[in-house]
Amino acid sequence: MSPSLVSNGDFTPVKSVVVNGRVASVYSEVQTSRIDHALPLPSVLRNPFKIVDGPASSAAGNPDEIKKLFPSLFGQPSAKLVPNDVNTLPADQKLKIGVVLSGGQAPGGHNVISGIFDYLQDRVKGSVVYGFRGGPAGIMKGKYIELTPEYIYPYRKQGGFDMICSGRDKIETPEQFKQAEETAKKLDLDGLVVIGGDDSNTNACLLAENFRVKNLKTRVTGCPKTIDGYLKSKEVPTSFGFDTACRVSIAVHADFALKLILLIFQPFRIYAEMIGNVMIDARSTGKYYHFVRLMGRAASHITLECALQTHPNITIIGEEVAAKKQTLKNVTDYIVDIVCKRFGLGYNYGVILIPEGLIDFIPEVQQLIAELNEILAHDVVDENGLWKKKLTSQSQQLFEFLPQAIQEQLMLERDPHGNVQKQKKMLIQMVETELEKRKQEGAYKGQFKGQSHFFSYEGRCGLPTNFDASYCYALGYGAGALLHSRKTGLISSVGNLSAPVDQWTVGGTALTALMDVERRHGKFKPVIKKAMVELDGAPFKKFASLREEWALKNRCISPGPIQFVGPTSTAVNHTLLLELGAQV
Amino acid sequence: MSPSLVSNGDFTPVKSVVVNGRVASVYSEVQTSRIDHALPLPSVLRNPFKIVDGPASSAAGNPDEIKKLFPSLFGQPSAKLVPNDVNTLPADQKLKIGVVLSGGQAPGGHNVISGIFDYLQDRVKGSVVYGFRGGPAGIMKGKYIELTPEYIYPYRKQGGFDMICSGRDKIETPEQFKQAEETAKKLDLDGLVVIGGDDSNTNACLLAENFRVKNLKTRVTGCPKTIDGYLKSKEVPTSFGFDTACRVSIAVHADFALKLILLIFQPFRIYAEMIGNVMIDARSTGKYYHFVRLMGRAASHITLECALQTHPNITIIGEEVAAKKQTLKNVTDYIVDIVCKRFGLGYNYGVILIPEGLIDFIPEVQQLIAELNEILAHDVVDENGLWKKKLTSQSQQLFEFLPQAIQEQLMLERDPHGNVQKQKKMLIQMVETELEKRKQEGAYKGQFKGQSHFFSYEGRCGLPTNFDASYCYALGYGAGALLHSRKTGLISSVGNLSAPVDQWTVGGTALTALMDVERRHGKFKPVIKKAMVELDGAPFKKFASLREEWALKNRCISPGPIQFVGPTSTAVNHTLLLELGAQV
Repeated sequence: MSPSLVSNGDFTPVKSVVVNGRVASVYSEVQTSRIDHALPLPSVLRNPFKIVDGPASSAAGNPDEIKKLFPSLFGQPSAKLVPNDVNTLPADQKLKIGVVLSGGQAPGGHNVISGIFDYLQDRVKGSVVYGFRGGPAGIMKGKYIELTPEYIYPYRKQGGFDMICSGRDKIETPEQFKQAEETAKKLDLDGLVVIGGDDSNTNACLLAENFRVKNLKTRVTGCPKTIDGYLKSKEVPTSFGFDTACRVSIAVHADFALKLILLIFQPFRIYAEMIGNVMIDARSTGKYYHFVRLMGRAASHITLECALQTHPNITIIGEEVAAKKQTLKNVTDYIVDIVCKRFGLGYNYGVILIPEGLIDFIPEVQQLIAELNEILAHDVVDENGLWKKKLTSQSQQLFEFLPQAIQEQLMLERDPHGNVQKQKKMLIQMVETELEKRKQEGAYKGQFKGQSHFFSYEGRCGLPTNFDASYCYALGYGAGALLHSRKTGLISSVGNLSAPVDQWTVGGTALTALMDVERRHGKFKPVIKKAMVELDGAPFKKFASLREEWALKNRCISPGPIQFVGPTSTAVNHTLLLELGAQV
Repeated sequence: MSPSLVSNGDFTPVKSVVVNGRVASVYSEVQTSRIDHALPLPSVLRNPFKIVDGPASSAAGNPDEIKKLFPSLFGQPSAKLVPNDVNTLPADQKLKIGVVLSGGQAPGGHNVISGIFDYLQDRVKGSVVYGFRGGPAGIMKGKYIELTPEYIYPYRKQGGFDMICSGRDKIETPEQFKQAEETAKKLDLDGLVVIGGDDSNTNACLLAENFRVKNLKTRVTGCPKTIDGYLKSKEVPTSFGFDTACRVSIAVHADFALKLILLIFQPFRIYAEMIGNVMIDARSTGKYYHFVRLMGRAASHITLECALQTHPNITIIGEEVAAKKQTLKNVTDYIVDIVCKRFGLGYNYGVILIPEGLIDFIPEVQQLIAELNEILAHDVVDENGLWKKKLTSQSQQLFEFLPQAIQEQLMLERDPHGNVQKQKKMLIQMVETELEKRKQEGAYKGQFKGQSHFFSYEGRCGLPTNFDASYCYALGYGAGALLHSRKTGLISSVGNLSAPVDQWTVGGTALTALMDVERRHGKFKPVIKKAMVELDGAPFKKFASLREEWALKNRCISPGPIQFVGPTSTAVNHTLLLELGAQV
C-alpha cells in the first residue's frame, strides 16, 4: 500500500485519485511534513490496561430532573484506564463504530478520528469505522463512508474537518431519533463517537439514553470540541487533576484545565499570531487603532486568552460588561478615556480586542434592536421621527445617543429575515463620535483612525500544534477504548496534561454528570452549561491586574507562527504553565 | 553588556527599560528564539573584497530626459563586490551613516538595518549609525536616534518597522531638500540608506543627485523594499543572474527574480497560510464562498503569488481585467459562471482571490465614481432620479445595472473628503444579484453565501522567514559596503538567490538605470516604473493554464505556518524553484 497525499474533500475515494496520478500535488511542504509526524501516546494506551469505575455520579444541577430525563444513564460512574498485566478487553470481537463531527471547525478533529481508527486497528483488528458525512444530518440520512487507512492517511495531523465534513443539524424530534436508530441498526453499529461542543455532547447523551432504552447495542461516546460548557471545572475528577505535577490547589485546577482545553481545541493560537502582527504594525505606523473582533458569541474565552498571550492596549470581556451592567456609553467611554490618555503619552495607536458577541452582553442594545424590529415590521417610519415615540424611553435615549451613521444603518440594513442588523463597526463609530465631542471640548487633540478586523475563518482550520495533535489523538484513542469496553454516555477525557504525554491520564466522564436543566417552552431541557469567563478566576484576575499597564505602556507580545519542530514547538504550554504557576 | 529583550517602539532607550527590570517580559518564545538565530552571510561579504564597476548604464526609458534630471549621476556603472586578497577599503575612516524606513511595512526591514550596522561594526570600527524616526519626515525634521548594539538587539530578525518606525512623507519641494541637506550637514553624514519602494528609491536618487550637486559628502544608497517597479526584469544585470545555478534562459530569469523578490520582501507568506486555512474551512463547512481581498492597489502580484501558492477556485488579476478591458459585468459573470458550474458538480463553496485595487482596473467603474463625485458635489440629488440624466449614458447604464443596495451605499457613504467610497463588498453583492437572476431563470438552484475578507495588517509585520532574514541582512550589509566605497545613487542588489546563501552575489545597480520619465503637471518627473503582472510572464501563464482545473476541481493547497527550524524552514524557495524549473 502506498498511501497518497491527495486530499478529497469531495469524497472521491483517495484510491481512485491515486489512479489518476495526482499524487502529492495538493499538499504544501509543511502539510506533507506533518502527515508522517509520529504522535506520542500516553503510556496507559501503549500498554495493557483495564478500565476502573469511579464512584456514582450526580449532575451539575437539578439531579432529580436529570434523572427523569436520563433514567437509564443517570448516576453512571466515571471510567479510568489503568495499567494492567494483561488486556481485559476482547481483541477478537470486531466492532463497527460510527464517527461524526458536529458544529464549527477547530484544529484537531482529524486527529480524534485517526485516534479512534488506530485504536481499533491496534486492539480489535478487523473492526470497521464509518464516517458520517456533513455532521449529524449524515446520521439521520444515513450518509456515510467507510474509513480505510488510505482514506484517512492524507488527513492525518491536518487541520479542518474536511475528511467527513461537519454540520450544525441536531437530532431532536422523535422522527429524527427514529432515523438515527435506523441508521444504527442498518450499519449494525456497536458504537458512535460524537465530536462536538456542549450542545452536541448533550445530543450524544440523549442518543445514548435513547439507544439504551430501545435496547440497541449501539453505545455512544462524546468527545469535547470546545470549552463551552464541557469542563464545568468542579466536575473534573480530581483523579484526572493536575495536583501531583503542578502542586497547585484545586481552585487553580479549574482554571488551568480551562486554559489547557481552550488551548487545545480552539484556534486562538493563530489569532494570537495575527494580533501580534497587527500590534507591531500599529506601533510601526503609529496612527491606527485596530479593533479586532474575535470569535465567541456566548463567552469571551478566546478574547481573554488572546489578551493574555498578546497584551493588547484594550480588551473588552463580555462577561464583565454583563456583570457590571455596563451600557454602550460605558464601554465607549472606557475606550475613549484610554485613547485620550495614550495620546497624552505620545501614542496615537493601539489594539483593542472585542468578543464577537459584545452587543449580546449589553442589555440596552439588545432591547433597542428588539423594539426596532417590532416597529419596522408593523409600523410606518415617518420622516419626522414620530415613530420614535413608540420606543421605550430608555431605547429612545440610546437611539438618540447613537451617531447618525449608525442610526441610518440600523434603519436601512436588514438581515435575510428582515431584521435589523447589529452593526459590526458600531463601536468604532461610537468611539469616533465621542472623541469628536471631546475634541470640541478641548479634551483631545489627536486624530483618531480606526481599523476593523474580524478573525474567524482564518484560524479554525489551521494545522494543529504538536500539543493539539497529541491531545486530540489521545481523546480519540481513548474513545475507542471506552466503546470497546461497552461504555455508553461518557465523554472521553484526557488529563494530567501539564505532564509529558507519556503520563497523561485517559478515561471517560459521565455526560449526565456535566448536565443541568433549563426551562424551555415550558419543559425541562438538559444542557451542558456553557462555561463563561469567571471574573474571579485566575485568568481574568491576571488580565485585570495587568490591563492598566498594557493600556498605557506598550507591552505587546507577538507570538509568531506556530512551530512544529525545535525548542519552541511546545512553547505555548510552557507559557501557560508559568503563567498559572506564577499566581499560585 | 547584557542586551535586553525589551522592545521600545516608544523610543525609550532599551537601557533605561532594563533598569526598570522589565527584561524579557515582552517577547514570545518564538520571537526570543529568533533574536539569537545566526544569519549566514554570502562568502564575498565574509572575506576581503574589492568593488568592480560594470559598463556605463542608461535608463529604463527616455535616457535623454533622465540625463537632464540627473546630470551628475546619469550613466553610472553598476558595482559588484568580488573576492580579493586584501580589503581595498580603508578600515580606519570612521563613517557616519543615516538610515530611514519609507512606506508600508514588510518583513525584513530590521534585518536590513542590522546588516548596515554590522557591516560598519565589522569593517569600520567606531562608525556611527543614526536611525531617522518615522520615515523621511525624520530626515527633514532632524528626528533621529543613534543606534547602539543594545538598541538594535531586541529588533534583530523581528518583524515590523518599529525600531525607528516608518512614514509616507516625501522629500519633494526645494524647502524639503534644503531641510534634508541641513540634517546631513548637522550630523556630518557620510552616507544615507533609504529602505523603500519605487517612489522612495526615486526619492533616494534625487537626494543623491542633490547632495552631489551641492558638493555634500553624503552618499545615498537605496534598498529595495517592494517589487513594485524596482526589478524591471531586463535591468537586472546578468552578472547577478541565475543562469549558472538554474540553467534557465534569460526570459525565465526575469520572472524568477520577480518571484523571489516578491517572496522575500512581501508578507504574502502569511496571507497564503490564512487563505489555506479559509479554503479548508470552506470545504469543511461546504456552504460559503470566501471573497479574499489582498493588498495591491496598483498591481496584482500578491494576488497572483497567493494563487500559485494556494490554488483558489477563482482569482481575478487586475492587469488581465485592464488588458482585456473587462467590465464589472464581465468579472461578475466570470465568477457566477464558475459558481453555477461548481454547484452542478456538488460544490456549494469556494475561495475567490481579488486584488485590493480591482475597481481601479475597471475603467467604467472609475468613470462612474468620478461622475458621481462631480454630481454630488454640485447638484441636488432629487428623489425622482432626474439627477441621473447628468451621468454619461455609459455610466447611467452601469449605475442601473448595480444592485440597489450598492446604489444606495454609493450615494450615502463618503470618505473624509466627501467623495463617493468604493464599495468593498461590491463584488459579492453583484454576484448575489446575478445569481438571484439566474435562479429565477432556472439556471441556478443553489443558495449562495458570500464572506468578505481583507488580508493586510495581519501579515505586513510578521517575523521574517529564514530566507527573508538572510536576504535582507545581505542587502543591508552590502549597502554598508557601497557607502564605504563612496558610491552614491546605487540600489543595493543581492543576486544568485537560487544558490545557497554562501554563493549569493552582492553589489549595487545605478538607480538612474531603473528610471523612466512620466509627464506630470506639464513637467517630466523621474519614476521607477511599477512592475505590473505581465500576462505573458511565466507566473501568469502557469496560473492561466491551471485556473480552470482549480475552478472546477478542488486543488487547494494549505501552506501552513512559517517554520524556522527543520526541513520545511526553507520550503518556499524550493517550491518556487520547482515551479519555475518545471516550466523551462
